[in-house]
Amino acid sequence: MREIAVVLVGPKNEGNIGAVARAMKNFGARRLVLVDPCHIGDEARKRAMQGAEILDAARTAPSLEAAVHGADLVAGTSGIATANEKKFLRIAMAPRDLAKRTAAMDGTLALVFGREDFGLLDEELALCDLLVSIPASPQYPILNLSHAAVIILYELAVVGPPMRSSREASGGEKEVLHTALSDLMEATDYPPHKRARTKVMFRRLVGRAVPSKWEFHALMGVLQRATKRIERLERKQTKKPRAPR
Amino acid sequence: MREIAVVLVGPKNEGNIGAVARAMKNFGARRLVLVDPCHIGDEARKRAMQGAEILDAARTAPSLEAAVHGADLVAGTSGIATANEKKFLRIAMAPRDLAKRTAAMDGTLALVFGREDFGLLDEELALCDLLVSIPASPQYPILNLSHAAVIILYELAVVGPPMRSSREASGGEKEVLHTALSDLMEATDYPPHKRARTKVMFRRLVGRAVPSKWEFHALMGVLQRATKRIERLERKQTKKPRAPR
Repeated sequence: MREIAVVLVGPKNEGNIGAVARAMKNFGARRLVLVDPCHIGDEARKRAMQGAEILDAARTAPSLEAAVHGADLVAGTSGIATANEKKFLRIAMAPRDLAKRTAAMDGTLALVFGREDFGLLDEELALCDLLVSIPASPQYPILNLSHAAVIILYELAVVGPPMRSSREASGGEKEVLHTALSDLMEATDYPPHKRARTKVMFRRLVGRAVPSKWEFHALMGVLQRATKRIERLERKQTKKPRAPR
Repeated sequence: MREIAVVLVGPKNEGNIGAVARAMKNFGARRLVLVDPCHIGDEARKRAMQGAEILDAARTAPSLEAAVHGADLVAGTSGIATANEKKFLRIAMAPRDLAKRTAAMDGTLALVFGREDFGLLDEELALCDLLVSIPASPQYPILNLSHAAVIILYELAVVGPPMRSSREASGGEKEVLHTALSDLMEATDYPPHKRARTKVMFRRLVGRAVPSKWEFHALMGVLQRATKRIERLERKQTKKPRAPR
């Protein structure tokens, strides 16, 4: 079963935090994680209504990295979607597509929302497996924080359980896959200035594809085999010049 | 063209009115009508953000009947939906169905939202052409007023021309990617009996991910580089034994 965790990064308005807790209660999400939040007082509690229990149980994490630790899929949100591929960090999917793609998922889906004023930083976006953006009026596409949350929670709730799909690779397995790609780039002396970008692109591609365990193993097999082969061949080569010593 | 008017009946919290105005601005609705509203002051303005112009232009009507006068379709909203036909006043459709049914409509669609605490009265529901209810958790189906409004406005806006997506890799490019994977398997002496299966899995994964051109180039870069590296290293190795000949 898919469990949803909502992560708020640097919320500045306690009313918004309360409103998000209420929205979570409305749509059956339970885990709220706060990174560097403002003070939470009466206003948050008032706005939470019956979501107060979610507010009380909220966990505070020291960083986004800590907040999403153990999540199987990390979906960042952005008010600024782009079709400009140079800004690849901000290429986003619609909430409905996220709902469809994760409906059969087994594990934790972390929904990450940034600050009210300037959203998520680039280094925070880089931690996300995929990015979601709510299609809104180009004249004013920036939604209130709890409005963005309630729309995405609604979309996730409203897309019912679809056909059963095959077992998905876990978050841990996907990390192993990302490490395998890094290792291969290392082994091939892939230009260092391109590595970060390529890693994020691969992460997004895998995030969207929602690979099965079988696909994970197949892809791992190819990547690891290539890395080991290169390493072995290079060890042999470096041995040769050493021989005369 | 369909024009949307939002009618708030007896709103008690000015913050909610402001938040609704913002939501309207986010989704391209312009006409706000207030029936028996509370005082509208700084909090409403603050929450409205760039929707303040909608707040300023809001019309106050003496009754719901006056508010919806001239509308082509009046959609009431209710947190309590029912399938019980004895309570026919409260038989509701989902927001998505409303969106589909009115997408091609020409005229004014009035969305009517009731009081924060007890919604619309029976005599007000009787003025509505249809009723919309947001499917939510049975444990707590009552949404905040502006949350209900933003979900319905979003649904109405999203049915229609979809977001522009980034440039997708073409079919030909994807084939090049598949060939690159085959080449890498060849170079690494990947077990022949596993190759066909791995190729299919990779194809499915790429098919679902719908990679952009940039992602295609990034992934191609890694695969081709690995293949070339292995081939070059192996050429060097095979040269050595030949040397004495």
